[in-house]
Amino acid sequence: MTINSFIPPQRTLMGPGPSDIYPQVLHALSRQTIGHLDPLFIGMMDELKSLLKYAFQTENEFTVAISAPGSAGMEACFVNLVEPGDKILVCRNGVFGERMRENVVRCGGQAIVIDDEWGSPVSIDKVEQAIHQHPDAKIIAFVHAETSTGALSDAQAIGALAKQHNMLTIVDAVTSLGGVPLRVDEWQLDAVYSGSQKCLSCVPGLSPVTFSQAAVDVIQSRRAPVQSWFLDQSLVLGYWSGEGKRSYHHTAPVNSLYALHESLVMLKNEGLENTWQRHREMHNLLAEGLEDLGLTFVVDADSRLPQLNAVFLPEDLDDGAIRNQLLTEYNLEIGSGLGALAGKAWRIGLMGYGARKENVALCLKALENVLKG
Amino acid sequence: MTINSFIPPQRTLMGPGPSDIYPQVLHALSRQTIGHLDPLFIGMMDELKSLLKYAFQTENEFTVAISAPGSAGMEACFVNLVEPGDKILVCRNGVFGERMRENVVRCGGQAIVIDDEWGSPVSIDKVEQAIHQHPDAKIIAFVHAETSTGALSDAQAIGALAKQHNMLTIVDAVTSLGGVPLRVDEWQLDAVYSGSQKCLSCVPGLSPVTFSQAAVDVIQSRRAPVQSWFLDQSLVLGYWSGEGKRSYHHTAPVNSLYALHESLVMLKNEGLENTWQRHREMHNLLAEGLEDLGLTFVVDADSRLPQLNAVFLPEDLDDGAIRNQLLTEYNLEIGSGLGALAGKAWRIGLMGYGARKENVALCLKALENVLKG
Repeated sequence: MTINSFIPPQRTLMGPGPSDIYPQVLHALSRQTIGHLDPLFIGMMDELKSLLKYAFQTENEFTVAISAPGSAGMEACFVNLVEPGDKILVCRNGVFGERMRENVVRCGGQAIVIDDEWGSPVSIDKVEQAIHQHPDAKIIAFVHAETSTGALSDAQAIGALAKQHNMLTIVDAVTSLGGVPLRVDEWQLDAVYSGSQKCLSCVPGLSPVTFSQAAVDVIQSRRAPVQSWFLDQSLVLGYWSGEGKRSYHHTAPVNSLYALHESLVMLKNEGLENTWQRHREMHNLLAEGLEDLGLTFVVDADSRLPQLNAVFLPEDLDDGAIRNQLLTEYNLEIGSGLGALAGKAWRIGLMGYGARKENVALCLKALENVLKG
Repeated sequence: MTINSFIPPQRTLMGPGPSDIYPQVLHALSRQTIGHLDPLFIGMMDELKSLLKYAFQTENEFTVAISAPGSAGMEACFVNLVEPGDKILVCRNGVFGERMRENVVRCGGQAIVIDDEWGSPVSIDKVEQAIHQHPDAKIIAFVHAETSTGALSDAQAIGALAKQHNMLTIVDAVTSLGGVPLRVDEWQLDAVYSGSQKCLSCVPGLSPVTFSQAAVDVIQSRRAPVQSWFLDQSLVLGYWSGEGKRSYHHTAPVNSLYALHESLVMLKNEGLENTWQRHREMHNLLAEGLEDLGLTFVVDADSRLPQLNAVFLPEDLDDGAIRNQLLTEYNLEIGSGLGALAGKAWRIGLMGYGARKENVALCLKALENVLKG
């Protein structure tokens, strides 16, 4: 069999990620590779760190990008902070809360699950109740923006509760970073991870993370070594540390880091507040159009993510056939439902570069045409 | 502080990796991102799998690319195959053998270390002896091409010994894949991992791996779940499996996978035998020139890797100053010594696209000029 170069089509990516990539980011991605210990590369990494701190709204020194996708960022937070026997409160209102629970178990921790309905935000009352029942819990883990449902939870309130009770937080900000307000320092969050391929509109494969000093202290006073060598942040710290000589840990994904740098330069140039505002405005346009088409949202208006719009399928519709038609006729990708919502909902992303009028217009018109049959 | 786009210089990369990237690969990298569940992407992944099987010379169905660098590929092999209490023979003749030992320990395994001098290949006699002392060992782990020294070990002989004694092998082929003969099936190797950024001349960030049926059987009959969610290959298998519906595990690093696909198309077009031959010829040219400059090799001629040439520094030379001069005056990167060889040796890579006459000529002339002072 002869295999030729793969030439992808030009899709409009309005699923749950990867999102539409900024053309400038693809350009940056293909720049000449240099060594990961080259002084110029190390200078780029220092800039990247500073840009990540801006994106996360934090002064945390330990703010880096894990050289792997968001699920590895999640795992980095858990394996570094959870030790065998630790009690962890895990809020579960979708797929990624459940994945957090699995991480706790694989670290030998005891997961106390706080369940909310799929499509609902995490209930602050339930979290408070769980804290009172389990005052010895070490960490509260929750998803800020649930990619499987489109629900936004109140990270500020959970952060405050955790601090009141001397607990750490692990926060999934994969879909929230760059799309909705996230203020790591002001909200007193401890370990926060994200993904490059959502509202940052960078290529998939990197996971920005930030650890508060409290989290770093916990990492540095562990009883047992971290079960993962690759994700052991005490080893990675050496490579990313402020100045001077970098010690070799692993070969950094040089070109992907160029791309992340570029996407964060674009974020900084637009300004976080403007970016959040743009996501909100595009969401309003899309939501109005979707409702005109008779589609209803999975999530109530007050906890709806602008960047991830989950709507129920009209009854008796062939989910796969419709999405396939959008893809083949309009080169438009929207997402299917995940987990409990599989076959029942679509997920329409308006993330980063994807949150613009032409995408909203294309999506609404294409859906209208396809739904008419 | 204003941060602008990062524009790297054009370096010639002759260190231990990342290596010079094929221009075609950088081009493929920047193609339009499509969704990781897009049918066209899944078709690309099927091709990629077939190309990886060619590169590894295997028919193993479970031949994939881990979405993270080579050290995660290493970890994927260990966390999936090693369970607490398992006895593992680990051959250590450089940095990466030691990293294997650390992986065993972090999996709760018992590492029996077989030490050889840095710069020597793994001693087959010692392996045989260790097998006789520890007939209950489950796995023999070794590095095929030690990137820290440039020593090539006899993977075929170790593979045969392992099979005779009903043990599995875990093989580090990070630097060997594409540079020297590696025949996974013929040599009966069980779990083999590599990196994208060495002799494949692709960007860093991916780790090709292959698991034999015997290794898959061990994974599928584990007593305990794999400690890593991200690297749990029983979950990943669903995504890469032969045909039909792919289940979502994590968001694949789409663009990096385009690049790996392209680099493997180039490998297949050149042909493995031709590639190995080219590495050998360029090495001979380089070695002759280095010896003319009075430099001596760390590794004896019969176990020297063509793609990774470690030579001792002339006495009284300032390692950092020389390498810095090569970098700033000639845009040429060569590698420093690692671990026991830090400050004592250089590592000159001739990997993939980097193994060509113009690179050899540049390196020899620049070194000659710089060493003259």
